[in-house]
Amino acid sequence: MHPLPLMPQTTPTPAFAAFAADQPLAPHSIERRTPGAKDVAIAIEFCGVCHSDLHFLRGEWGPIPYPAVAGHEIVGRVTAVGPEVAGFKVGDLVGVGCLVDSCRTCPSCTEHLENYCTTGNVQTYGGTDSVLGGPTYGGYSKAIVVDERFVLRIPANLDPAAAAPLLCAGITTYSPLRHWKVGPGSKVGVVGLGGLGHMAVKLAAAMGAQVTVFTTSPGKAAAAKALGAHDVVVSSNPDEMKRVAGSLTFILNTVAAAHSLDPFIACLSRDGTMCLLGAPPTPHPSPAVFQFIFGRRSLAGSLIGGLKETQEMLDFCGQHGITSDIERISMQEINRAYERLLKGDVKYRFVVDMKSLA
Amino acid sequence: MHPLPLMPQTTPTPAFAAFAADQPLAPHSIERRTPGAKDVAIAIEFCGVCHSDLHFLRGEWGPIPYPAVAGHEIVGRVTAVGPEVAGFKVGDLVGVGCLVDSCRTCPSCTEHLENYCTTGNVQTYGGTDSVLGGPTYGGYSKAIVVDERFVLRIPANLDPAAAAPLLCAGITTYSPLRHWKVGPGSKVGVVGLGGLGHMAVKLAAAMGAQVTVFTTSPGKAAAAKALGAHDVVVSSNPDEMKRVAGSLTFILNTVAAAHSLDPFIACLSRDGTMCLLGAPPTPHPSPAVFQFIFGRRSLAGSLIGGLKETQEMLDFCGQHGITSDIERISMQEINRAYERLLKGDVKYRFVVDMKSLA
Repeated sequence: MHPLPLMPQTTPTPAFAAFAADQPLAPHSIERRTPGAKDVAIAIEFCGVCHSDLHFLRGEWGPIPYPAVAGHEIVGRVTAVGPEVAGFKVGDLVGVGCLVDSCRTCPSCTEHLENYCTTGNVQTYGGTDSVLGGPTYGGYSKAIVVDERFVLRIPANLDPAAAAPLLCAGITTYSPLRHWKVGPGSKVGVVGLGGLGHMAVKLAAAMGAQVTVFTTSPGKAAAAKALGAHDVVVSSNPDEMKRVAGSLTFILNTVAAAHSLDPFIACLSRDGTMCLLGAPPTPHPSPAVFQFIFGRRSLAGSLIGGLKETQEMLDFCGQHGITSDIERISMQEINRAYERLLKGDVKYRFVVDMKSLA
Repeated sequence: MHPLPLMPQTTPTPAFAAFAADQPLAPHSIERRTPGAKDVAIAIEFCGVCHSDLHFLRGEWGPIPYPAVAGHEIVGRVTAVGPEVAGFKVGDLVGVGCLVDSCRTCPSCTEHLENYCTTGNVQTYGGTDSVLGGPTYGGYSKAIVVDERFVLRIPANLDPAAAAPLLCAGITTYSPLRHWKVGPGSKVGVVGLGGLGHMAVKLAAAMGAQVTVFTTSPGKAAAAKALGAHDVVVSSNPDEMKRVAGSLTFILNTVAAAHSLDPFIACLSRDGTMCLLGAPPTPHPSPAVFQFIFGRRSLAGSLIGGLKETQEMLDFCGQHGITSDIERISMQEINRAYERLLKGDVKYRFVVDMKSLA
């Protein structure tokens, strides 16, 4: 008599899912695997709400299988570990970001840049589960099981709710700031003051840079300075823009809507780089090439960060007491939060308190 | 009785000038200053023909004062030096490139990057003469007088005629190859195989890089390999392009006509940069942002090079026996050469033999 085929055991887990692109999110039950040898099981306490969640769930990045569960700014407590897990124990405060797996063998993976895995990493949601098959389900849920290589330690001095957005908004801004060697003496511009932008201001200032915030809203000046900005420029005002022309060594552009890049490139000093963090749904106007040539300037892009660097970022935030400015919501408030997100009406990140999910 | 105001003394000098945007070049006489304390007087033997000459003289970069004299790839012999000149003596073989002066005090000048002088450098033609006032006149002439800081030494082992294009085409490609640290292990793409492109192939290969030439003409493969290219890709063939996708660490794009940058950016490996050397008269299609983000790639530009680096490039070419592939013409053949230049009918640079000019 043959034994039944080996199937990973799973546990039903409460979640909040989208059942169609145009319908509000609603309660759902998903299956989480029983921890394998190297797995960490996590009771999710908080999950940040990233603009990507909304794009993904509404099918704006392409068709997805429903029901779908978003959320990749996850903080929780370890509830169980597999026998080969070395770095975590039950009760630890941990985080999970945008990735839960990668090939681990390509050049990018071997350089700790799993975010650029060339054979395809596994996103926390919107990926294909490497153990169970089927879609991965994100952090809008009570629990998650993740290989320890993709689990991060959250510094004890940080508020766990406010630390959740570090897992995406934090690393997405920290990684390019480090890659382009921002530090004392750097003059950094930040375009846009939302979830990413407000983290960029805090991180760049903590790295010792002079930080200039570009905003279209004159009313945001005080808020920008409260976050650590040294200067605020209203980007719709040409005289203001002229004041900082040619002065910035690095610009982090967090605006994903199509806009002219030229006025910002003009603010770069010789050898300066503007790094884009968002891809617009319609193209930006084509940037003027002469601005690259006269000044040896660069336009670049950056995608989240690797796991090693994400831990480095969390430790840096622990040392500097940096978290996201957040507004706590219940899971049931998510649909209303999405509407406010679309209007930019949040300072600066919604975080779901998972106690609200039964 | 007051003495007459001090006026710099000048010498009438035969030249070939454009008298209007739409008229052929014709003989002319210009004034060159008597050498000042730090000046080097040069009898011009050869002058390369750069595409910029044509754009400039035809007013395609904006209105210019006529008569106008182009030419910024100048090689000649020193005929006189001012009393304070330390680096040159009568009889030396020397060169003059795109610049004859700069502010010498801005951050770029103090870092030997006079090409990026922020207060405005003086171009060899199309600038304002810092001694005589009025327009600067280029190398389509029998002689030039230049401050020694902007005079280069030509290695004795190089053919003087074939060395002339190094002063613009050479340094314009050498500088970005050095800036982006091309060397052994680099995989360099060169887009376009004209005056700039053919120098880029020779220089990158001499630096130890693997060189891939992108061309729209399958017939250019043998020529590209003869110049030192290791691989040739017909860029209009998607299968060919797919073969090198994600493989190049640096691309030098020498094509100034508007074209889609996306297929080339797709050939960059993670952290790769494509550097543009020409500004198109109409914009390139806007590049796809996701290709920057997924792979942390950059798009950049570069403008000629500083004087120190130009000397370094000339010395490098001397060591490696590198010159331009040229077709010698007389000054009187310049108008016909321009017509051929517009058709890309030159391998790879015209050089005027100034003996032809009476």
